[in-house]
Amino acid sequence: MTNSRFFVINEHPEGVPSPSLFKLREQSLSELGEGEVRIKNSWLSVDPYMRGRMSGKRTYTEPYELNAPLTGAAIGEVVESSHEKFKPGDKVRHMGGWRDVAQLPGNEVEILPNFDVPEQAYLGVLGMPGMTAWTGLNVIAGLKSGERVLVSAASGAVGSLAVQLARLKDCQVIGSAGSQQKRDWLEHHDVTGIDHHQDLDELKASLHDAAPQGIDVYYENVGGDMFEAALDVMNPFGRIAVCGWISGYNAKDAAPGPANIAQILMKRLRIQGFIVGEHWEHYRRFLSEVGPQVEAGNIDYQETVEEGLENTPKAFLRLFEGSNHGKMLVKL
Amino acid sequence: MTNSRFFVINEHPEGVPSPSLFKLREQSLSELGEGEVRIKNSWLSVDPYMRGRMSGKRTYTEPYELNAPLTGAAIGEVVESSHEKFKPGDKVRHMGGWRDVAQLPGNEVEILPNFDVPEQAYLGVLGMPGMTAWTGLNVIAGLKSGERVLVSAASGAVGSLAVQLARLKDCQVIGSAGSQQKRDWLEHHDVTGIDHHQDLDELKASLHDAAPQGIDVYYENVGGDMFEAALDVMNPFGRIAVCGWISGYNAKDAAPGPANIAQILMKRLRIQGFIVGEHWEHYRRFLSEVGPQVEAGNIDYQETVEEGLENTPKAFLRLFEGSNHGKMLVKL
Repeated sequence: MTNSRFFVINEHPEGVPSPSLFKLREQSLSELGEGEVRIKNSWLSVDPYMRGRMSGKRTYTEPYELNAPLTGAAIGEVVESSHEKFKPGDKVRHMGGWRDVAQLPGNEVEILPNFDVPEQAYLGVLGMPGMTAWTGLNVIAGLKSGERVLVSAASGAVGSLAVQLARLKDCQVIGSAGSQQKRDWLEHHDVTGIDHHQDLDELKASLHDAAPQGIDVYYENVGGDMFEAALDVMNPFGRIAVCGWISGYNAKDAAPGPANIAQILMKRLRIQGFIVGEHWEHYRRFLSEVGPQVEAGNIDYQETVEEGLENTPKAFLRLFEGSNHGKMLVKL
Repeated sequence: MTNSRFFVINEHPEGVPSPSLFKLREQSLSELGEGEVRIKNSWLSVDPYMRGRMSGKRTYTEPYELNAPLTGAAIGEVVESSHEKFKPGDKVRHMGGWRDVAQLPGNEVEILPNFDVPEQAYLGVLGMPGMTAWTGLNVIAGLKSGERVLVSAASGAVGSLAVQLARLKDCQVIGSAGSQQKRDWLEHHDVTGIDHHQDLDELKASLHDAAPQGIDVYYENVGGDMFEAALDVMNPFGRIAVCGWISGYNAKDAAPGPANIAQILMKRLRIQGFIVGEHWEHYRRFLSEVGPQVEAGNIDYQETVEEGLENTPKAFLRLFEGSNHGKMLVKL
């Protein structure tokens, strides 16, 4: 008999969730059913989109069910299998995160690709955040070599990869980040850093200074004032890939929208929201392009790690304090 | 010696222009230069985009020069030609409007296509407004047969064609218009009419009533509250073709933007501004699709006509009073 320890929420939070929202539960797992696998998790992913799933409202993802194990991406090792594709010892990725042991149908589990990278890379640079950065730039915004690119939350899990993928395409890149340390990291990677904790007028002035020739592609993770300031500096025929709107995730009331929204017409912009899960058909192409770059050490993927299952809520909440750099992970 | 009478503006207006902005001037035309043609105009077009060109600022079109003849689309007859492609009597379309006689290089003039339609149709249903409606729906929004479509300013020159082109594609269509008479016209064409002179909450409620299954494609001519209300009813993966933002053209200060702008992400919307002149490579395809429908009487194209060159400013200003139905024209 194996027990699984997992987190649930028993109410839908408003605003920034408090640590006490998350309840650690334990239960014994049933015998493996036909086609199932049991996985001992080694790494858990926490991601901003999970906040939306906690709201209880149908947004762009299914809401989390109250008192059911939370889910999320995880890496682990198969410990028992009744599915022909898996045997004990296989390293796998799956969505049974927020727990130490997961038991899932084999068709919801995938064997890790075999690049020479640490296994947790498949939760970050070669997982959902990397695929998200690559998809927004290439599939949604149609980024071309040499264009000028702006990335908000540019030191986050997705943003830090978006700036580097754009630099690898010989683009001039500007990134916003909320601390001097993060902006130093950006500058170190040949990315112009701007402070996104400024008021709207200052933000506009900073962007005009940083991008005197305007921006062709904006990779949006933040929304709010950043979106409005970016509309001001977009070049005609600019494209905006809307990947996140973290400024609004914990807001109880909607903030006023951008007063310069008519720039969409004036500049013939194309703005598109996307969720990477709906573009997963490009994952193999992404892996073949980005995998070798990671193996070759050409991409600096930052991680912030909390240790121990019990610290998963803390890791999640750090996403909203801005105290993580790069991919936020929990190591079990 | 032939004289040309034409309109100029001698200052850049703020807000709604007054009739006194427009000065009628007269001058004698020089001898025809090599490759030039002289055209006696019969129909002049006035269009909302001209307001932007009067502002003196570079928006999405070149600003009008002060004290130089205003320009715009016109239909006329060649009266003298030193260009091999044209002979007296040819019916042509060109941009030398706002005047009675135009003299232009032949390469800026085109012979009218030969559908069996009145010549002024090439300023409306088979001209820029028709091409704009078709391009927004098909090229920009990728409209598919059977989808649900919302058109704002749906009884205007462009909107009245957009609703009918969408109906010809078996779409369910909702149109906004500012008077009961205009909404009656919409209902007569099997389009659900809603009143756009409502406050935001009423507008949202009307749209939810009219589109309980949501909207797949929004053809935007208005902006402001209509844009915000439309974001509320868009379906996931909806497309918004932004063709006009007439709510802002005469505004001295920017209105607050849509508070629900994050719907772009939540619903994975694609929003794109466009100017038809940048998509003119599709004009032949447009003509081949829409020309036969107009000849067959399948499209009801409304015109509001002012007579006489001196009434051109009045015709133009009617665009902002909303007192035109369909294409606003001046007959000389």
